[in-house]
Amino acid sequence: MDQHIVLDHGTGARLSRELVEFVVGVLGDVYIGEMEDSAVLPISVGRIAMTTDSFVVDPPFFGNGDIGKIAVCGTVNDLAVVGAQPLYLTLAMILETGLPIAQLHRALVSIRDTAREAGVKIVAGDTKVVGEGEADGIFLNTTGIGVFHEEPKRMTDVEVGDRIILSGPIGNHTIHLLSVREGLGFEQRVVSDCAPLNGMIDSLRDKVPAGAVRSMRDVTRGGLSAVLHEYSSALGRAVRIEESALPIDHETRMAADMLGIDPINAANEGCLALFVAPDAVDAVLETLHAHEYGRRAVLIGEITERAEKAVEMVGTDGRISEIEELKGAELPRLC
Amino acid sequence: MDQHIVLDHGTGARLSRELVEFVVGVLGDVYIGEMEDSAVLPISVGRIAMTTDSFVVDPPFFGNGDIGKIAVCGTVNDLAVVGAQPLYLTLAMILETGLPIAQLHRALVSIRDTAREAGVKIVAGDTKVVGEGEADGIFLNTTGIGVFHEEPKRMTDVEVGDRIILSGPIGNHTIHLLSVREGLGFEQRVVSDCAPLNGMIDSLRDKVPAGAVRSMRDVTRGGLSAVLHEYSSALGRAVRIEESALPIDHETRMAADMLGIDPINAANEGCLALFVAPDAVDAVLETLHAHEYGRRAVLIGEITERAEKAVEMVGTDGRISEIEELKGAELPRLC
Repeated sequence: MDQHIVLDHGTGARLSRELVEFVVGVLGDVYIGEMEDSAVLPISVGRIAMTTDSFVVDPPFFGNGDIGKIAVCGTVNDLAVVGAQPLYLTLAMILETGLPIAQLHRALVSIRDTAREAGVKIVAGDTKVVGEGEADGIFLNTTGIGVFHEEPKRMTDVEVGDRIILSGPIGNHTIHLLSVREGLGFEQRVVSDCAPLNGMIDSLRDKVPAGAVRSMRDVTRGGLSAVLHEYSSALGRAVRIEESALPIDHETRMAADMLGIDPINAANEGCLALFVAPDAVDAVLETLHAHEYGRRAVLIGEITERAEKAVEMVGTDGRISEIEELKGAELPRLC
Repeated sequence: MDQHIVLDHGTGARLSRELVEFVVGVLGDVYIGEMEDSAVLPISVGRIAMTTDSFVVDPPFFGNGDIGKIAVCGTVNDLAVVGAQPLYLTLAMILETGLPIAQLHRALVSIRDTAREAGVKIVAGDTKVVGEGEADGIFLNTTGIGVFHEEPKRMTDVEVGDRIILSGPIGNHTIHLLSVREGLGFEQRVVSDCAPLNGMIDSLRDKVPAGAVRSMRDVTRGGLSAVLHEYSSALGRAVRIEESALPIDHETRMAADMLGIDPINAANEGCLALFVAPDAVDAVLETLHAHEYGRRAVLIGEITERAEKAVEMVGTDGRISEIEELKGAELPRLC
């Protein structure tokens, strides 16, 4: 491990994982999390899910959203993907001296509206203020808990032959934010996908046989590549996806090319990767298509039999290439 | 409310309260917290307590502690004072590029050791990294939940005539940190009181009749003054304390005079204010004195009959003066 924190320790790729492993190693038996998006906690009777996330989004306010909306969606989604019903969120804010109250207000309104949509309550809060130059406008933390009405979903529930479905296009959130940040002019046509996904996950619970959706992950920091590497590693199986199936908008691809970014590594805030039993693929796609946030859901790949940690992509020309795990995505502060 | 965030929005006095009222006002029905230190949450069967705190301590590493220790103690104490047994903590970190790993390690070791002492587990974590100059070294957030083995303790359980006990001296944490920060040379002789107080609170539960300790508060940001104003306001009764009873170390008072600070407004990290039925005062003091963190516990005052929001102090000369609620303490980043 390096001797200093570098920017890529925060980008969700390998250096991030090394940082997490370092943290967990030092904490020893005090840490009982499971490297799932939420911790599943025995609690007297019943279990709850609990997850935390800090948000350092730059810019904190963008075309079709802001740090407040992201802060609720991020935590709600982390709870929902493990099969929990999100219930309660805490909200902690670090505010830089000089932050206009109007901006704080805008973030709070987004938090309120998004929490209403997601059906969660904020149950405790904290505010800290630092001097000018000691933070960057506004940083948020939300920590959430949820309850289980079914068995928690885990990465290791996924089986060989399970199909991989994406609930919507990838890359848009990253391109939108970079465009606002760098003044590239794409931000009108490519907007963030930021959304609370628990309602859509509820509809899957209603309409798809129990157990058919084996596991889910919201595709955030580190992008689809990070999610696929995570599952490949947890399952000890190679994962294969089809390049032609990847839902990437034309303008997003153009902008990504211009910026030298691969959308497969780009952070999203409202996109779900679902690992689904083969015979349930149609039912899952139909249910997702009926939901506002899943209209463009597509099948993109599967878990192969090959006992190897690898993520490979079948190109449009039929050739197979390996998707490498990035050391760092060099795309800081998108979430 | 002002149009910009100012430093005193973070100092725990009136401007902080106005900021909280503003936040709660905007959040509307999405916020169901109760302005207690922890949120008490109905949950299928049983109730849990949940609380959150961000830590922006400057300096993050000081003579006898660091931001990691404070981050565990702060959240553990917030859970314990409402009568909950702290169980689970989340840990989120915002790290500035360039932070030495050795410093991160030191903070993590403190977190681990303090969590062990307090008997809590870290159940989920998050790390974000920002660029140089976008944060100040290391910011932490801990969010905790606890379970209740008895009825939650609330401010409004306090009755007229109840006595106020402090578990230890006030002002030391603030003087220690300011001394390190400003190079004043007091830091060897005045050390921070930072400590997890749940063990001491457990011993009260074992040894003092149930209900005799009506309510507790850890005396942190805003100091004793803020706690007393909070209770006076919640109860609609004047609070009276005795100046001669206040536990303030000689060197702390000297340093405070030099710095133009009143220890009554100073943040602490291991000091408890207890509101106690009159006939239980002796038992509470005896139990506190038997515990490492309560050896210097003293009776300092009482809740009067007078239906008025006021905090008054009987001076060493017998004269009564009012302790005003500060607009801002101008002591940022001590917790």
